[in-house]
Amino acid sequence: MSHRTPWIVAGTLMLALISTTVFATDHPVSDATQECLGCHSIVTPGIVADWQKSRHAFVTPAEGLAKPEQQRRISANSVAESLSATVIGCAECHTMNNDKHATDAFEHNGFTIHTVVSPSDCATCHPTERDEFSDNLMSQAFTNLMDNPVYAIMVNNTNGLATFTGEGFHHQPADDVSNADSCLSCHGTEVKVTGSVTRETDLGEMTFPVLSNWPNVGVGRVNPDGTVGACSSCHARHQFSIEMARKPYTCAECHKGPDVPAYKVYSVSVHGNIQKSMDKYWDYKAVPWTIGKDFTAPTCAACHSSELVDENGETLVKRSHRMNDRLPWRIFGIPYAHPHPIHADTTTIVNKGGLTLPTELTGEFVSEFLISNEEMAKRQQTMEKVCSGCHSEQWVKGHFSRLDRSIETSNAMTLEATKVLSAAWKEGLAQGLPQNANPFDEAIEIKWIEQWLFYGNSVRFATAMGGVDYGVFADGRWTQARNLKEMGDYLKFLRATQPQTQK
Amino acid sequence: MSHRTPWIVAGTLMLALISTTVFATDHPVSDATQECLGCHSIVTPGIVADWQKSRHAFVTPAEGLAKPEQQRRISANSVAESLSATVIGCAECHTMNNDKHATDAFEHNGFTIHTVVSPSDCATCHPTERDEFSDNLMSQAFTNLMDNPVYAIMVNNTNGLATFTGEGFHHQPADDVSNADSCLSCHGTEVKVTGSVTRETDLGEMTFPVLSNWPNVGVGRVNPDGTVGACSSCHARHQFSIEMARKPYTCAECHKGPDVPAYKVYSVSVHGNIQKSMDKYWDYKAVPWTIGKDFTAPTCAACHSSELVDENGETLVKRSHRMNDRLPWRIFGIPYAHPHPIHADTTTIVNKGGLTLPTELTGEFVSEFLISNEEMAKRQQTMEKVCSGCHSEQWVKGHFSRLDRSIETSNAMTLEATKVLSAAWKEGLAQGLPQNANPFDEAIEIKWIEQWLFYGNSVRFATAMGGVDYGVFADGRWTQARNLKEMGDYLKFLRATQPQTQK
Amino acid sequence: MSHRTPWIVAGTLMLALISTTVFATDHPVSDATQECLGCHSIVTPGIVADWQKSRHAFVTPAEGLAKPEQQRRISANSVAESLSATVIGCAECHTMNNDKHATDAFEHNGFTIHTVVSPSDCATCHPTERDEFSDNLMSQAFTNLMDNPVYAIMVNNTNGLATFTGEGFHHQPADDVSNADSCLSCHGTEVKVTGSVTRETDLGEMTFPVLSNWPNVGVGRVNPDGTVGACSSCHARHQFSIEMARKPYTCAECHKGPDVPAYKVYSVSVHGNIQKSMDKYWDYKAVPWTIGKDFTAPTCAACHSSELVDENGETLVKRSHRMNDRLPWRIFGIPYAHPHPIHADTTTIVNKGGLTLPTELTGEFVSEFLISNEEMAKRQQTMEKVCSGCHSEQWVKGHFSRLDRSIETSNAMTLEATKVLSAAWKEGLAQGLPQNANPFDEAIEIKWIEQWLFYGNSVRFATAMGGVDYGVFADGRWTQARNLKEMGDYLKFLRATQPQTQK
Repeated sequence: MSHRTPWIVAGTLMLALISTTVFATDHPVSDATQECLGCHSIVTPGIVADWQKSRHAFVTPAEGLAKPEQQRRISANSVAESLSATVIGCAECHTMNNDKHATDAFEHNGFTIHTVVSPSDCATCHPTERDEFSDNLMSQAFTNLMDNPVYAIMVNNTNGLATFTGEGFHHQPADDVSNADSCLSCHGTEVKVTGSVTRETDLGEMTFPVLSNWPNVGVGRVNPDGTVGACSSCHARHQFSIEMARKPYTCAECHKGPDVPAYKVYSVSVHGNIQKSMDKYWDYKAVPWTIGKDFTAPTCAACHSSELVDENGETLVKRSHRMNDRLPWRIFGIPYAHPHPIHADTTTIVNKGGLTLPTELTGEFVSEFLISNEEMAKRQQTMEKVCSGCHSEQWVKGHFSRLDRSIETSNAMTLEATKVLSAAWKEGLAQGLPQNANPFDEAIEIKWIEQWLFYGNSVRFATAMGGVDYGVFADGRWTQARNLKEMGDYLKFLRATQPQTQK
Repeated sequence: MSHRTPWIVAGTLMLALISTTVFATDHPVSDATQECLGCHSIVTPGIVADWQKSRHAFVTPAEGLAKPEQQRRISANSVAESLSATVIGCAECHTMNNDKHATDAFEHNGFTIHTVVSPSDCATCHPTERDEFSDNLMSQAFTNLMDNPVYAIMVNNTNGLATFTGEGFHHQPADDVSNADSCLSCHGTEVKVTGSVTRETDLGEMTFPVLSNWPNVGVGRVNPDGTVGACSSCHARHQFSIEMARKPYTCAECHKGPDVPAYKVYSVSVHGNIQKSMDKYWDYKAVPWTIGKDFTAPTCAACHSSELVDENGETLVKRSHRMNDRLPWRIFGIPYAHPHPIHADTTTIVNKGGLTLPTELTGEFVSEFLISNEEMAKRQQTMEKVCSGCHSEQWVKGHFSRLDRSIETSNAMTLEATKVLSAAWKEGLAQGLPQNANPFDEAIEIKWIEQWLFYGNSVRFATAMGGVDYGVFADGRWTQARNLKEMGDYLKFLRATQPQTQK
Repeated sequence: MSHRTPWIVAGTLMLALISTTVFATDHPVSDATQECLGCHSIVTPGIVADWQKSRHAFVTPAEGLAKPEQQRRISANSVAESLSATVIGCAECHTMNNDKHATDAFEHNGFTIHTVVSPSDCATCHPTERDEFSDNLMSQAFTNLMDNPVYAIMVNNTNGLATFTGEGFHHQPADDVSNADSCLSCHGTEVKVTGSVTRETDLGEMTFPVLSNWPNVGVGRVNPDGTVGACSSCHARHQFSIEMARKPYTCAECHKGPDVPAYKVYSVSVHGNIQKSMDKYWDYKAVPWTIGKDFTAPTCAACHSSELVDENGETLVKRSHRMNDRLPWRIFGIPYAHPHPIHADTTTIVNKGGLTLPTELTGEFVSEFLISNEEMAKRQQTMEKVCSGCHSEQWVKGHFSRLDRSIETSNAMTLEATKVLSAAWKEGLAQGLPQNANPFDEAIEIKWIEQWLFYGNSVRFATAMGGVDYGVFADGRWTQARNLKEMGDYLKFLRATQPQTQK
């Protein structure tokens, strides 16, 4: 694909190169990585310096494997000898598994490399995490959004342009660039090689594959090697720091908006306050993570993913990258909260009304696709193990009985909004399902969506995580009630615009 | 109530117990607390480890009392000899004053303990703080909300369900669980013993009292011992760290939403910027707190509560847990800003219209229940002492003259909104006070509430704390003006829905 | 103006004075500053202690000038001998250039001082920064707002009171106090000496000039010495810390609200996450700033202002206080994104419709006042240099092609909103430009403004800085689409209120 380019093209570069070949790490760096670093410390110095601070730059797989099991950050039982004795550098990840990168591997200064490191590459050392993650709703975030007709309409209405006709609006479908820049930034884009490009660079002419919908680090990214997911979504390149993944700011990248106000809720919870106020005394890097000693209040990771132990080394909960292992209920992104789907791919779920939704529009669960009561109880128990690290059983039970009620009432408030919308549809004041029209493009329809996508979500998150403001005034019960009343008046106003035909 | 349970029930527990009996503190721990720790380091290890980091675990009352007065964190002149020589551990607080815990004390492994530690317990060492706090509006946060008919209606409309009738809505009263999970999470719940429950635990069968509306750490909690308030609301268990109480994240738990945007306003103020940017160089633990040396910009606590001194040890302001000691005006939670009420319990205030509000609906003050101009001037002077630590008199006067104007204009904008609402009521387009109907459950009524509860508040907070964005676009003057105009159009739209009967 | 006041008025002050004359700095302090400190460590101790932590208190201009060029924080080639050998204290800045402070200099305990230190004073040591800044839109923030008729109307509608007439609203002009407390807090007020006042102080009777619209640290402040701007807007008194200016919390003071959601967008970007999670390992003080070593993700300053180098000392971009040096597009505060204006003063720009706007109401650029395509390309390249410190060319190009599309679509969505508003105006349902009436005071007009001032802005910022949530649900494309649909329905509702006359 590319011809070898002399990588020293000028005296100044040569000089720079010499002065940068001794890297900060005293640990063994492979020859291949050494060569990468030679140029990239000049062309992308920030990324190289960042990597030099990473654990990858200081620990070899062999050293990792030698640790006691509870302290290991590597889940493979063994690693190929060729990878074992050097630290994990550029070449290790970007030249690995090239046989699986048929479409995106390319010649680059004498190496065959691929730009997009996929979960399958990471699984060389971290197979358990990859496997768990692949069973996670998040890994299907692209498919579950774009291949579900209900959500695909919402995406189109959000990112597509609308033009005013004098009476109403015409809609244009959303374009790939806007989708990639909007929903798919978190959900993940479909990255494929669409051609190649030759460019004059500081180090001579080079040829690179052209990647579609690039850049992207969305959690359900469809990679050129056919895998889905991006570990770098939460483990930001190129430090891949566990400290960072355990901090709530990582989750906040995608879980802060009104549709998933997790971080905002956390920030006003007692837990969030303790984290923000006291975390300078914490050790975010310890593996396993000792409750009370390493940290004094949970972060997102503590409740949903990390392995937690007490000071005697007793395990409270095991690590899991299947984030719903501790979650019986799915509380966001859907009209009604419901038991978690059995499978990560939710596009096969169909309700009685023929919609690809896990509940009817009336809230009834489409149970065959959802986990059983037994499975729900099991997941609940796992989560309660986390809570019980600090709280009494009565405290914990009290907390979760509120969540049950919160799910009940927020679902009920969605149902009432649905009744208002149905009336509008029935009376022809909005064009939706009965008219086989776009059900989500008119103002009253958008208000219906916000009733659950913003306010119902917010109420449930606020309860689940104890950040109560978001359960009351800030997009909570107050706003849910207001929105319902406004929908009622909106219906009246729409009726007033068509007095003859509608009455 | 419970029979003594052998607290070593298995070999592994025995082992754990032995390895945990030597605690991190070298200071004297009472035998009783030692015994608590024996089990609880196993059953709630996080809470034990958290306490071990607290000042309570390192300092005995006797040591605290020996400090120079300005440095003391204990306001009692003396402490009973039995408590004096050991650190403050589990048993000290949870077995203290059992005579006052007639309803909630219970037998627990040979001890009589109570779960809910109340201000009266804390007052053993911190009586001044308890006394000041009890004179604080916050200590009456439950009563002032739930026993004031005006606010009780708002609570019901927020947390109760509404059902759509095809034309309008039917309302159901709010349930206790939703209230506890919503408004009362900050305001405090009513906690009573409602029965007992026997449970199989890791350490054998045990019986516990059942507490109503539990868990809760709301600031005006009604405790089983009859007291009101929860010190742990701001001094989070079990470190009770002064560092944390002085950080704004503590106040943000309840003071962040649109109804009380204090934290958000602070975060965009110069003070908030300095705090966030530079506080790694600060000493949040020093008592007293030296302005400029220990901290270079005020936090919530600095302006409203802490004892501040200069580098020569001269006191600028004395510590106070009566938060309005430095506040002439009450600027949030009410239709019109007004001089602070004389008494913490505001439920006895009645205006000429018979409403339990400190102003008329036209904004006129109900002066007999409010502090005098002299008292206002005195409080103003106290606050100005804080400002003058860094600012010239002209700066300070300029700042507060803006607050006067901000109160004036935000009150005026509430009055105009009231006129629109009155018109709607008068014309029967909404059912409110004139109809003896629920005055707060219709969309236009909710818009009226938001005019003051969200936007008027926000304007005043933005001025008071210099976080201007919230005084302009983010729920500020811009939004206040928009909401007023929307109310005007809303009135027009309502008129259009009933052309015959209303015109 | 004032008579010399004995500065030791009481024994206790004398004592305090003696104990405070030895300051923390071992570096040479001028006699004049020493005298200032003598009193001010008593009367404004916080500000003195704050200054003592500043670089100004530790480094003399001579020492600053002796540093290698890349490390210098002082851009003057030389400094007057009288200033050169002592640190920069109170007297240095507040007695400097008194000849230029004809209106505001005053006698104060034997010195002639001025309260308002202006960019012209700072330029004594930092002339390049002053010059660059004066060419910056920000330096004209007062004029560009208040002297542009279009924006002046918006200011009036925001801060002026409206009174309800029963049918509509009467408007009062905004008052100076409200303006200073609102828009002008960030934009800067007009500060003039309006008289003098004599006051009894702790140190005797003193006379001070009265400053209009004081206090203020707005970025385009009009100073008594005739200059515009306030360096202290971003370099907060009295540490003037580069660390603080480089942190995003400084920019957030004015760039957080819905009109300029830069900080909010940053906080959910990968960059913002890395900054928040990992900056305890960063060196915010290093000059120049080494990418990857001193910091591992850009802050606002890194992309828009700072001098960045790699570990070999090679410069990626030069420092600039002309913030749009790296910005081809102006993306906020205007109906349509457009190429940056050529001049910082935008009040001379007039479009074909006679409005002082850089685009027509249809979005067409008023090109003669805007930078050329060549200049845009040059600025784009400069910004790309920053990105290329860590990212490949394909990544960077992909990113900016999204920004192009985002500008296109957000502009298109403003155009559609403009069509709805035009229809309302044409049909007389709102009174605006065609009626020579206030075009921004009715609810549907306010919705039009929010379409671009809040939502269009938000979409573009989200793309530009990769904080996607604000490009989707939180005031992004979702909200933009909803607002447009609501405007359409609003038009219908307005039509319904006047069925006879309008149809």
